[in-house]
Amino acid sequence: MSRELTVSIDAMGGDAGPSVIVSALARSVQRHPKVKFILHGDEPMLEKLLGKRRARFANRVAVRHAAAYVRMDEKPSLALRRGRNTSMWRAIESVKNGDAEVVVSAGNTGALMAMSMYQLGVIDGISRPAIAGLWPTKRGQCVVLDIGANIECDADQLVDFAVMGEAFARAVLGIQRPTVGLLNVGSEEVKGHDAVKGAAQLLRNASLPMEFVGFIEGDDIAEGTVDVVVTDGFTGNIALKTAEGTAKLVISYLRSALKRSLLSRLGAFLASGALKALRRKLDPRASNGGMFLGLNGVVVKSHGGTDALGFASATDMAIGMAEGAVNKSIIADRAGVQQTSREAAAR
Amino acid sequence: MSRELTVSIDAMGGDAGPSVIVSALARSVQRHPKVKFILHGDEPMLEKLLGKRRARFANRVAVRHAAAYVRMDEKPSLALRRGRNTSMWRAIESVKNGDAEVVVSAGNTGALMAMSMYQLGVIDGISRPAIAGLWPTKRGQCVVLDIGANIECDADQLVDFAVMGEAFARAVLGIQRPTVGLLNVGSEEVKGHDAVKGAAQLLRNASLPMEFVGFIEGDDIAEGTVDVVVTDGFTGNIALKTAEGTAKLVISYLRSALKRSLLSRLGAFLASGALKALRRKLDPRASNGGMFLGLNGVVVKSHGGTDALGFASATDMAIGMAEGAVNKSIIADRAGVQQTSREAAAR
Repeated sequence: MSRELTVSIDAMGGDAGPSVIVSALARSVQRHPKVKFILHGDEPMLEKLLGKRRARFANRVAVRHAAAYVRMDEKPSLALRRGRNTSMWRAIESVKNGDAEVVVSAGNTGALMAMSMYQLGVIDGISRPAIAGLWPTKRGQCVVLDIGANIECDADQLVDFAVMGEAFARAVLGIQRPTVGLLNVGSEEVKGHDAVKGAAQLLRNASLPMEFVGFIEGDDIAEGTVDVVVTDGFTGNIALKTAEGTAKLVISYLRSALKRSLLSRLGAFLASGALKALRRKLDPRASNGGMFLGLNGVVVKSHGGTDALGFASATDMAIGMAEGAVNKSIIADRAGVQQTSREAAAR
Repeated sequence: MSRELTVSIDAMGGDAGPSVIVSALARSVQRHPKVKFILHGDEPMLEKLLGKRRARFANRVAVRHAAAYVRMDEKPSLALRRGRNTSMWRAIESVKNGDAEVVVSAGNTGALMAMSMYQLGVIDGISRPAIAGLWPTKRGQCVVLDIGANIECDADQLVDFAVMGEAFARAVLGIQRPTVGLLNVGSEEVKGHDAVKGAAQLLRNASLPMEFVGFIEGDDIAEGTVDVVVTDGFTGNIALKTAEGTAKLVISYLRSALKRSLLSRLGAFLASGALKALRRKLDPRASNGGMFLGLNGVVVKSHGGTDALGFASATDMAIGMAEGAVNKSIIADRAGVQQTSREAAAR
């Protein structure tokens, strides 16, 4: 059950356009009976798509007209300059104005980050926001950040990511004392570049409500060795996409292996329920959404190519982040790190 | 069929010790009837392990005593200083002396690289050697480098990796005009850090026997978008291990899904041949070995935790590299890049 809050939705973002977003909205309205929604976009088009549902949604869904939208391939800097009348800008503005608590968009990631930073601002003490993603593991799931916002990161930024990931894991995933690992090429202290080594040093000395386990390697992510995986946006993005590609490859190998003989085809038929369950478990739509952490407001980016199910999952995540008050946790924990750094500096 | 060459083997490297190496040797002796082998290590122990096979191998296998060995967790710098009497040093020395063409070790990667660089030296014009790995894809396989030797790389180093990967793909995989991609967080020209952007610029202008396709993303690796994936050792190592972890995760999901019901168990039983084929296809032992590229000599690192099958695969790879004369290709192609750079500088 959700407490009362409002979700602002960029209805024009994503590859498939507003029809998918409106279908997703219908799911979200049912799933979250106490939540209200504001749809930003081409009003006549959205009203038409809402159609018969309009009357039923009357008290829960508001439509606000935006004359333009951000193209998927538009340069973020350009979108920021010329985009005040876009559905994305207006959707973020609703959070800035206090009309909504969270915003969800399936649009251009770079533009969404740039506009969110400009309008909402970054939490005091956090150098740059990061994008966090949920990752399936042998033990359940973990949160990985940054998965693409910051190409190059120094030690302090990685520490910020650890703080934000830990706060997210506590506030949203409900893990009391999350374990945190720094992604590296080996677990020995001497391994890696200066940024990861520096971040490890800082995290070892920080007094935070988490357990810092030190360096972890790529295979530890799926193993579920830690609850929070910290890395720079370059490595995190490549790791995420490599994992997606690998999962697809294994499934395609499985599919062709099962077609080899009559016997294996029969076997696959009998096990089809199990194979469907496997596909559901690996369905990227179930954990869809890049969570923007470090902003004064909750912003969730749905995958651009997602369908209604995926967009609704991203909306679930945004609502969960608001309910868990993830930003309050980040602010409190960031203060803890600053305290520790000051103490260290004073020594 | 192999032409006559000699493989030098560090018999003391790896987690499992020399018994695995000797079992692997027995396979290699059979597979490559014209190849000779030199085993470096504790002579009494190796003779005992060879046992009855000793007489049969008499003309093909020589044992050379080394009093010490490099520990798996030893610091490379320390191993380099105090390691002249180790099996690893002696195994590389056989290549340096011309007694063997290639060396294979399952020992400490960092020590093997340091000792190889010290004894064999780096190919003229190549700044640093890289470790290349084979990766299964939807279309067959691709070569990825660097997978761990160089944590931070500039544009010139990435160009070297492209040259070495392309030469490897031609000489060993038999691809006439390999496609080469730079691993990045997006395919647009503006994406990524300075090193990848700079390398892309240089590769676009290089006249090499390859097709440079530009930037690729993590999911392109398993997709088989290119024959050669170029990246720094930090990202490459993490991508490789993330992929290994993901493949294991999918298999473990599959296993538990198939146990769900009697019907799915029966299905799995009927399809067990197909499932075994899948496991074989994903068996990391089949493409075992990190190929050290850029040295004046062929060095292959077998996975430390491998068994006889895996070590024999690494030996196959080393023999293939010698037969394909991969180093000659690297030298020729590197000259092509220098020519192009000089021309560009003269303009």
